[in-house]
Amino acid sequence: MNELKNDRFIRALLKEPVDKTPIWMMRQAGRYLPEYRELRAQAGSFMNLCTNPELACEVTLQPLERFDFDAAILFSDILTIPDAMGLGLYFTEGEGPKFERPVRTGGDIDKLPIPDPEIELKYVMDAVRLIRKNLNGRVPLIGFSGSPWTLATYMVEGSSSKTFSKVKGLMFEQPLLMHKMLDKLAQSVASYLNAQIAAGAQAVMLFDTWGGSLGTEEYIEFSLRYAQQVRALLNTDINGQKVPTILFTKGGGQWLEAMADTGYDALGLDWQTDLKLARARVGGRVALQGNMDPITLYANPEVIKAKVGMILEKYGAGSGHVFNLGHGILPDINPEHVKAMVDAVHDLSAKYHQ
Amino acid sequence: MNELKNDRFIRALLKEPVDKTPIWMMRQAGRYLPEYRELRAQAGSFMNLCTNPELACEVTLQPLERFDFDAAILFSDILTIPDAMGLGLYFTEGEGPKFERPVRTGGDIDKLPIPDPEIELKYVMDAVRLIRKNLNGRVPLIGFSGSPWTLATYMVEGSSSKTFSKVKGLMFEQPLLMHKMLDKLAQSVASYLNAQIAAGAQAVMLFDTWGGSLGTEEYIEFSLRYAQQVRALLNTDINGQKVPTILFTKGGGQWLEAMADTGYDALGLDWQTDLKLARARVGGRVALQGNMDPITLYANPEVIKAKVGMILEKYGAGSGHVFNLGHGILPDINPEHVKAMVDAVHDLSAKYHQ
Repeated sequence: MNELKNDRFIRALLKEPVDKTPIWMMRQAGRYLPEYRELRAQAGSFMNLCTNPELACEVTLQPLERFDFDAAILFSDILTIPDAMGLGLYFTEGEGPKFERPVRTGGDIDKLPIPDPEIELKYVMDAVRLIRKNLNGRVPLIGFSGSPWTLATYMVEGSSSKTFSKVKGLMFEQPLLMHKMLDKLAQSVASYLNAQIAAGAQAVMLFDTWGGSLGTEEYIEFSLRYAQQVRALLNTDINGQKVPTILFTKGGGQWLEAMADTGYDALGLDWQTDLKLARARVGGRVALQGNMDPITLYANPEVIKAKVGMILEKYGAGSGHVFNLGHGILPDINPEHVKAMVDAVHDLSAKYHQ
Repeated sequence: MNELKNDRFIRALLKEPVDKTPIWMMRQAGRYLPEYRELRAQAGSFMNLCTNPELACEVTLQPLERFDFDAAILFSDILTIPDAMGLGLYFTEGEGPKFERPVRTGGDIDKLPIPDPEIELKYVMDAVRLIRKNLNGRVPLIGFSGSPWTLATYMVEGSSSKTFSKVKGLMFEQPLLMHKMLDKLAQSVASYLNAQIAAGAQAVMLFDTWGGSLGTEEYIEFSLRYAQQVRALLNTDINGQKVPTILFTKGGGQWLEAMADTGYDALGLDWQTDLKLARARVGGRVALQGNMDPITLYANPEVIKAKVGMILEKYGAGSGHVFNLGHGILPDINPEHVKAMVDAVHDLSAKYHQ
């Protein structure tokens, strides 16, 4: 880690002492930034930004020019793997991602390939290499993937869903088929994250955006089990440097104990989960990342600062906390409010690390 | 309760012995029933069904003709109170409820009246009286209201919302105004539910549909506090008969201990919450209602029966469980699958009540 000029984020994930609580923000490279919107307009489409390493690099670095974030996160989409599997990812304005060829039958599942990240997803690895080079040790770079369950929801539904009736239908009626699909996805996700690590990602995060749509039994069997399989397959020792891993299940606050047993170094928390109780529940086994309500950023800087103070106090003294929102920042937030949050985290957290 | 031919539902809520676990279903009078869709088409609009006591009564009784449900629930909308306050409720196809005059300023809040249920909401009370008469003691009738917080979200947003940015903005930046509004709503909700009880409702349920959008601190301060205020204002002793009360916060599984301290007889559970753990956590203070994933009803009857068995086993032996879905039934469910669930609950639960 000697190469890093700012290693607070890595140290906090590993529960090593830090001077201040590190902060980064889900979707920190995104539409709330005018310079992002400009580049997005030039690129013509969201996927053009993702698939062009130079543009993905530029977008990744944009928020670091404005704010004192302690980590960068690869600019990409969570659905790159199903796209590389041949499902035909596309976006329609205001409706979110869709697939031309959703997965519906056992035959569809049998045909799913496990992509080679340096071939079908080479554009992602090229972006990781370029970002890492351009970061030049300023802050660590986070790689990421959607979780097997979350990828499966989009792949079976063919789009976003409010009810998940198709993917849950498959799960309830043909659990063996569902397991076959999730096993392929776990192998693909692990291979993808290992390639990101080899290309230069210094931490990796698994986004289980839709695990919270499941009942407890189904979450353990169909989501967490495959998050754990991914973890077991990761190479997290790079020349003696540990690459920390983060697991985030939105809506998963009731399952933190089980999540803490899967080998990830840290858990992401949504804003509904009480950070103080969460710390007590995981009992020091993992670091915690979160968890301000993204809507707080609509409020004025004084309110934001007060809420930051409350969250830092909830975690309390000692390392093991990475400040973040509980979900991605919304597109119409004033960037000045982000600055208020970032600065408040650094200003107000030093006393918890003396 | 002597008048009731089937009082399983009331007894289970009060944790008195029962022969079988009672079951009813959120939105049991609704679009999945062809006879409902027919009446809805004749009525011309959803609100015409709600505001016509004869039609509301007919719709309420429809599911009882098909299924062996242990309770009827008043057919109405959760937004009748804000409509009675003069906000102008209307529905647009596929977009959910909206208000012509949303609440945005302190002046708007000052002007909100507390409706007289027997004047502005007389159509609801007339429906309750008619349903109760037509039920003739067959099963108990459940009255209901949206919670103060949930009503406030619609009143401030002016419609459904994914982010709740307007109502949370008010909450974060002008908490005193928000409290003023919620206090008026708590008084209005209590008055509305007391009128339903006086008109014949034999149990009442508070639907806190959007409490789960809040962080823990905000949930306690802006949602649960007013659910508790409502409870404290309810008249639940009608000629020596106890009228049980149910509190349901969708997404509130992390806050059950606090919810169990508010004086409600029972808590509704969404399907993400583990019923066995929930029973242990509330420690006998309240009965529990729930909590099958509504999507389970897409599966075949054998799968449905197996899931019913698992949920009954989760609760285990003894009274205090009312079977239900974890949220409302979806419009495209096959009614035969509902029958499979209802019959399975009665068939499989007897052994837990010996």
